[in-house]
Amino acid sequence: MPRSVDLNSDLGESFGAWTMGDDTALLRIVSSANVACGFHAGDASTMLSTCREAAANGVTVGAHVSYRDLAGFGRRAMEVPAGELRDEVLYQLSALAGLARVAGTAVRYVKPHGALYNRIVADERQARAVVDAVVAFDPRLAMLGLAGSAVERAAEEAGLRFVREAFVDRSYRADGTLVPRGEPGALLTDDAAIAERAVRMVADGVVTAADGSDIAVTVDSLCVHGDTPGAVAMAAAVREALAAAGVEVGPFA
Amino acid sequence: MPRSVDLNSDLGESFGAWTMGDDTALLRIVSSANVACGFHAGDASTMLSTCREAAANGVTVGAHVSYRDLAGFGRRAMEVPAGELRDEVLYQLSALAGLARVAGTAVRYVKPHGALYNRIVADERQARAVVDAVVAFDPRLAMLGLAGSAVERAAEEAGLRFVREAFVDRSYRADGTLVPRGEPGALLTDDAAIAERAVRMVADGVVTAADGSDIAVTVDSLCVHGDTPGAVAMAAAVREALAAAGVEVGPFA
Amino acid sequence: MPRSVDLNSDLGESFGAWTMGDDTALLRIVSSANVACGFHAGDASTMLSTCREAAANGVTVGAHVSYRDLAGFGRRAMEVPAGELRDEVLYQLSALAGLARVAGTAVRYVKPHGALYNRIVADERQARAVVDAVVAFDPRLAMLGLAGSAVERAAEEAGLRFVREAFVDRSYRADGTLVPRGEPGALLTDDAAIAERAVRMVADGVVTAADGSDIAVTVDSLCVHGDTPGAVAMAAAVREALAAAGVEVGPFA
Amino acid sequence: MPRSVDLNSDLGESFGAWTMGDDTALLRIVSSANVACGFHAGDASTMLSTCREAAANGVTVGAHVSYRDLAGFGRRAMEVPAGELRDEVLYQLSALAGLARVAGTAVRYVKPHGALYNRIVADERQARAVVDAVVAFDPRLAMLGLAGSAVERAAEEAGLRFVREAFVDRSYRADGTLVPRGEPGALLTDDAAIAERAVRMVADGVVTAADGSDIAVTVDSLCVHGDTPGAVAMAAAVREALAAAGVEVGPFA
Repeated sequence: MPRSVDLNSDLGESFGAWTMGDDTALLRIVSSANVACGFHAGDASTMLSTCREAAANGVTVGAHVSYRDLAGFGRRAMEVPAGELRDEVLYQLSALAGLARVAGTAVRYVKPHGALYNRIVADERQARAVVDAVVAFDPRLAMLGLAGSAVERAAEEAGLRFVREAFVDRSYRADGTLVPRGEPGALLTDDAAIAERAVRMVADGVVTAADGSDIAVTVDSLCVHGDTPGAVAMAAAVREALAAAGVEVGPFA
Repeated sequence: MPRSVDLNSDLGESFGAWTMGDDTALLRIVSSANVACGFHAGDASTMLSTCREAAANGVTVGAHVSYRDLAGFGRRAMEVPAGELRDEVLYQLSALAGLARVAGTAVRYVKPHGALYNRIVADERQARAVVDAVVAFDPRLAMLGLAGSAVERAAEEAGLRFVREAFVDRSYRADGTLVPRGEPGALLTDDAAIAERAVRMVADGVVTAADGSDIAVTVDSLCVHGDTPGAVAMAAAVREALAAAGVEVGPFA
Repeated sequence: MPRSVDLNSDLGESFGAWTMGDDTALLRIVSSANVACGFHAGDASTMLSTCREAAANGVTVGAHVSYRDLAGFGRRAMEVPAGELRDEVLYQLSALAGLARVAGTAVRYVKPHGALYNRIVADERQARAVVDAVVAFDPRLAMLGLAGSAVERAAEEAGLRFVREAFVDRSYRADGTLVPRGEPGALLTDDAAIAERAVRMVADGVVTAADGSDIAVTVDSLCVHGDTPGAVAMAAAVREALAAAGVEVGPFA
Repeated sequence: MPRSVDLNSDLGESFGAWTMGDDTALLRIVSSANVACGFHAGDASTMLSTCREAAANGVTVGAHVSYRDLAGFGRRAMEVPAGELRDEVLYQLSALAGLARVAGTAVRYVKPHGALYNRIVADERQARAVVDAVVAFDPRLAMLGLAGSAVERAAEEAGLRFVREAFVDRSYRADGTLVPRGEPGALLTDDAAIAERAVRMVADGVVTAADGSDIAVTVDSLCVHGDTPGAVAMAAAVREALAAAGVEVGPFA
């Protein structure tokens, strides 16, 4: 049984006058911060202060790279040519890396955001473009994503470390894929049940799918959300339950 | 008499489907490339290819940082709070630095663009904000700007190397300031006269002002433009005249 | 004594995934909605739904036009050439007018936002540019702004109706100008005192300045804010106090 | 045989400091101008001046609406939810309509741009969203697009007039679809052959497909490009050949 697991969350998603999420609360709970890089959210000052606060809390910084789509918050899939996508990922990764260094920390991994995350579960071309950007920037960085995805295969081919994440508040199908948002039961909301589920994923490598069957999962990192007060409470419940089960929370990188 | 001088030009100012300037021609003439960083011009792919082409031509790369204003091409002065401006400069500098490294080169200096360049000739607060960004990022970088400006003073106080530039095709007043664009005679257009003037600036440290008087100038770098076919010819004429006068063209950094 | 006054508030300032303010609560209190047009805030869907909700509440719609500055929320003054500014105002006004029409209502006035609002208190050139846009679009529209400002003079010269607004929660100097934000006492926070002050402004045309003297004010519209829960309560207190004093709240247009 | 046909071209695609195409030359050749609305190209001043110049040349104005993607020039397909897409089209259409009115003309039709144009050849949901926007704005506007497309069906169901366009410099397959760009022979480049082809499309309703077979086409409007000097010459050749064949060029609306 693993003695530790990473908790990651999307942070630094404010932009200018608009705020999103309770980053201060989350940074006391998680071990890895996916920091927005300006393409779906995250102005320069937010990026810098998020990195500073992550560093102060001993939280590892990752680049939460996205399609260029502020108006859609990076949630709209885009047919971006591979070369353009690679360069746009490089731009975001570079920008965050510089700000992280000024904040006294460093970018250790890349986690694609929103529609890009979902797209490279299956799209080999875009998956390779993202991986190419990371390799060109620094092949010691890890890639965080969904187990069994195109991006996992691309990362492995390129020799990048791939960190497999699971979602504590999402329902799984028997084949290991997620029940799509919008379908009944896709989202779990009971904190106690979610916390217990998280412990079981990490300690036993098992999760109960929507059809009631138990399926195997390999989890390097658990994703928790923080954009609502309720989500912070859920993240805290997960962390507490892990501690009670003897699982330490710590960054994978 | 100086045996060498730097020639710098604004490059990488295309954006997406829009092109600007003949970068390929200019990169064979200049020794320093002020590369746009995405805020007034310069998408990620343009930044990367400009850095690659600069590296291939032995041209030094500088960050041409700007106010965030694509629609105005960075030519509209903005009242940006100092902290925001510092962070926006850091973001741009970081982004270009990462892309330059991937391209096999490095950012060696920072030259503010357009309205920001003009603003920090006199605005102490914004000048310090830009200098603060450079110092935070890497105090070994040089700052390129106008001699006698607020940014020169701020750079010197901060211990940054300051590189003084002169404009080969602009008319000077007797007090050493530029005749503003829009006033009669502000822009020179005769290539031969401009080339001779450039040689005299470098070799003798003297330029003839609009009132006919000779005034002293200290020139570390000459700025040449490249956004029209005529401008490329002018830049070439300047380079040839310098060579004929025994002045080598080479990067200051 | 006036039997009625307008209450206006800045609304529709959400953008994509980011929300701002409690528009639903405010639209039950105010009589005029300054609707963001996409340049500092307000995506297309937000603009349309805000117009629909305003129409459903009998609230008049105005165009809250801004500098083009999403990252700065239109709070950073910009040196925009007059022609460009006029055209950018026209663009925003046109966009909102079309959406308002589809929503079953119409744009009745223009109120510049943030830094543009402040700039055209004194800047004659930018004030005229804004007025020129409104005249070109529809000279029957009113302009909402600060009494005694450059934009009031420009509006009057152009034959536009000018609606003078006062701020219920801002401190005034003896000369009728506002105490700048950031100075001590610039912002009032006691709801009861603010409500009483609002009634006195409307009923008696008088407000007590920061130095204790009473000064005359002419008020066609009172500006209330709604971006915090406290601000909604303040707006409600103002509306109640006006009602108690026999002053009806109703749109000026 | 038809006595007249429309010629349309994409215009007003400059943005800020960047220029694209020779609009002045094209506006002397075409009868309909697809004017960019700010989402893929076209700042406010460019939109206004393009409308003015179109009006001065007796050229009809259409709204060239796009995905929100300046960096990609609207050439990257996006998964935009239907409601968002409808509202973003409404916003663009409204903005151009206001500017066109100020310029003394009016928007008479809508032609989707780039990736959106291609997407709604087959995507029923996005096609309906665009049609919904046009109907909500003004059901008397026409929709310009590809014959046999999803958007043609959606327009007809909604009672919108649909104008079928053909491409003078693109190769057709035997089934009437275009040979995709990038495939050999997709683009025609011989002006004389293109001009003759255009005449035959209009006069005989026939075009020779890539496999040598003649296929029927119904053409209400011919699309000509103008973003290169060569393209202007091609457009002029088409117009001359039509005149020589006794076909007048005139707007469909």
